[in-house]
Amino acid sequence: MAEVVAAGKPIAGLQGVVVADSEISYVDGQAGRLVYRGYSIEDLAANSTFEETAKLLLDGALPNRSELDQFNAELIRARRLDSEIIGLIRAYPKNAQPMAVLRTAVSTLGLFDPDTEDIGPEATRRKAARLMAKFPTIVAAFERHRNGHDPVSPREDLTHAANFLYMLTGTEPDPEDARVMDVCLILHAEHGMNASTFSARVTAATLSDIHSAITSAVGTLKGPLHGGANQEVMKMLLDIDQRGLEPADFVRAMLGRKERVMGFGHRVYKTMDPRAPILRGFSRDLTARAGQPKWFTMSEQILETMAAEKGIDPNVDFFSASTYHALGIPTDVFTPIFAISRISGWATHVEAQYRHNRLIRPRANYVGLSDLIYTPIEKR
Amino acid sequence: MAEVVAAGKPIAGLQGVVVADSEISYVDGQAGRLVYRGYSIEDLAANSTFEETAKLLLDGALPNRSELDQFNAELIRARRLDSEIIGLIRAYPKNAQPMAVLRTAVSTLGLFDPDTEDIGPEATRRKAARLMAKFPTIVAAFERHRNGHDPVSPREDLTHAANFLYMLTGTEPDPEDARVMDVCLILHAEHGMNASTFSARVTAATLSDIHSAITSAVGTLKGPLHGGANQEVMKMLLDIDQRGLEPADFVRAMLGRKERVMGFGHRVYKTMDPRAPILRGFSRDLTARAGQPKWFTMSEQILETMAAEKGIDPNVDFFSASTYHALGIPTDVFTPIFAISRISGWATHVEAQYRHNRLIRPRANYVGLSDLIYTPIEKR
Repeated sequence: MAEVVAAGKPIAGLQGVVVADSEISYVDGQAGRLVYRGYSIEDLAANSTFEETAKLLLDGALPNRSELDQFNAELIRARRLDSEIIGLIRAYPKNAQPMAVLRTAVSTLGLFDPDTEDIGPEATRRKAARLMAKFPTIVAAFERHRNGHDPVSPREDLTHAANFLYMLTGTEPDPEDARVMDVCLILHAEHGMNASTFSARVTAATLSDIHSAITSAVGTLKGPLHGGANQEVMKMLLDIDQRGLEPADFVRAMLGRKERVMGFGHRVYKTMDPRAPILRGFSRDLTARAGQPKWFTMSEQILETMAAEKGIDPNVDFFSASTYHALGIPTDVFTPIFAISRISGWATHVEAQYRHNRLIRPRANYVGLSDLIYTPIEKR
Repeated sequence: MAEVVAAGKPIAGLQGVVVADSEISYVDGQAGRLVYRGYSIEDLAANSTFEETAKLLLDGALPNRSELDQFNAELIRARRLDSEIIGLIRAYPKNAQPMAVLRTAVSTLGLFDPDTEDIGPEATRRKAARLMAKFPTIVAAFERHRNGHDPVSPREDLTHAANFLYMLTGTEPDPEDARVMDVCLILHAEHGMNASTFSARVTAATLSDIHSAITSAVGTLKGPLHGGANQEVMKMLLDIDQRGLEPADFVRAMLGRKERVMGFGHRVYKTMDPRAPILRGFSRDLTARAGQPKWFTMSEQILETMAAEKGIDPNVDFFSASTYHALGIPTDVFTPIFAISRISGWATHVEAQYRHNRLIRPRANYVGLSDLIYTPIEKR
């Protein structure tokens, strides 16, 4: 069967190509449904926590109390970064891109991890939990460093989400803000064979270690066509605001220039991304509470214009921009938050790849020159 | 067309799936031919240098004298690592895996690169040349560090290959050894849509930067099913030698246990890998010159056993093991040498991906649970 495909033309972007069976999540693009391990995203957003959802993804079933307590304790113990790693982060240039810092820190952690070269299931799970625990600490430590502040040590009495906001700002967050961040982490945790998850699996499929795989995923998520999209949405909102333009005019002008409006459309969803309405509610409430309702109003006007002009619905990135902005998060930390969440999905996919491994090696269709003969440099 | 594929079963390892047109190299698996930009690998190995071959890959044509001189000068200028990077490498644990160090150093260089977030063609080419120039310096600096020695500064009067051996050992290499290393770098420079190259393209396809893409590629090459294979071959040779076994018996026992004998067979080549005979000659000559002909003799016996028992030919990894060993290179530096070479192909593919970009996002076929309802933790 594979040979039949090989004989054809290239399949641009591998669109529609099925690369693996998966029991992890179901992205139903036609119906606009997202399901993690059998549970709808709406159900998890309403009832679960990020820690519990991560455990659900990794194990395939919701944990009981003692399993969840043990997992929480494992994460809390691993939140702190060793002084070597803090020292390295402090040596990074302050103008570095936060996703490039996260990519580098993950790769560096691999050098120091006691299980680094062990790709067995127990060691891989331990490393996954340590990475998941440390992602918020890395992101917050660099945010503090580039602003000339000392890093804030993690607290053991706060949730994953609340502790992240605490380390970022140095202040214990409002419980409502912490819960919004918690749900945002649930919403971004897993999404099938997206580009960053796929890159983690391509790396793991050579039987490389999980630090290598997650490093690939972070570098892949960094791109503006993937995790960078919510940052692009915020830049657009800030641009419209600064220049005092009408959002509808701005978007119509972009479409007229055939420019891509970030935060709309999706390779898989043919209808509304089910995460968008949840984030829309957060955006409305948080921008109002922060006394900045304009970001939600502008977003709504852009949404209506896109619906009228193109019939395209918003995706997960669109309302996460104004939500994070209302939480006081710098724009270039939006994508690192995506990573803080998605590490749970990445780790689950890396484990799945190891379990049923096959080297991922597609083909290129050669359309170049042939039968050339090397000529000495003097004759060129 | 894509939708037809999507409806089918997963295509394991994407075997035979064509992901892109390419003008870079032709891997003719049926005929056992490898062609870079129209030139056969035999022609380039006999007549070219690594620097010229890299320029050929990047530009699509052999350079004239002034183009090559300019490229050489650019590489030589960029060989040196800044003191910040040397300082970071010296902070790495001495027992770190050299590929993990290279992955981390590439990612770290991205934090300091003046063009880091510019993915335009000129900036990407400048970054590619800087990375290519610095790969040998990174690998040699860590090799020195872990042995308790100061790094050796690069020389400006040596070729890329000779300078690498010089920095690794602190001694100017024998010209024949330097030429063997040069040809080894030519042979490994490019090989179609292999796993590491593909991972670089998956990362670049989100419009992430070239440091992210090359970091992914290094982490992917690190796996034993890809770049790690030549190290596994050497471990096998050392094991046979230490235990005083007959190579033929050893291999037959492995086959009896259904274990994979590394260095044999290839996803694409159905006949002899054309790089193998060239490396076979090096292995024969160098092991003889080093007074260690046993590594070649053992390799020949393994080759004959595999041909008789399985009818499988050796690939590029098989004779590179004994060749590098005869050059005095530590086993875990074999894969970094692969990376020192393959960066030329990776960079060429990243540039090609940017030129005709499409997000690479395949699908997973969901085979998991559905319609579960969240139950409170007390009821689990």
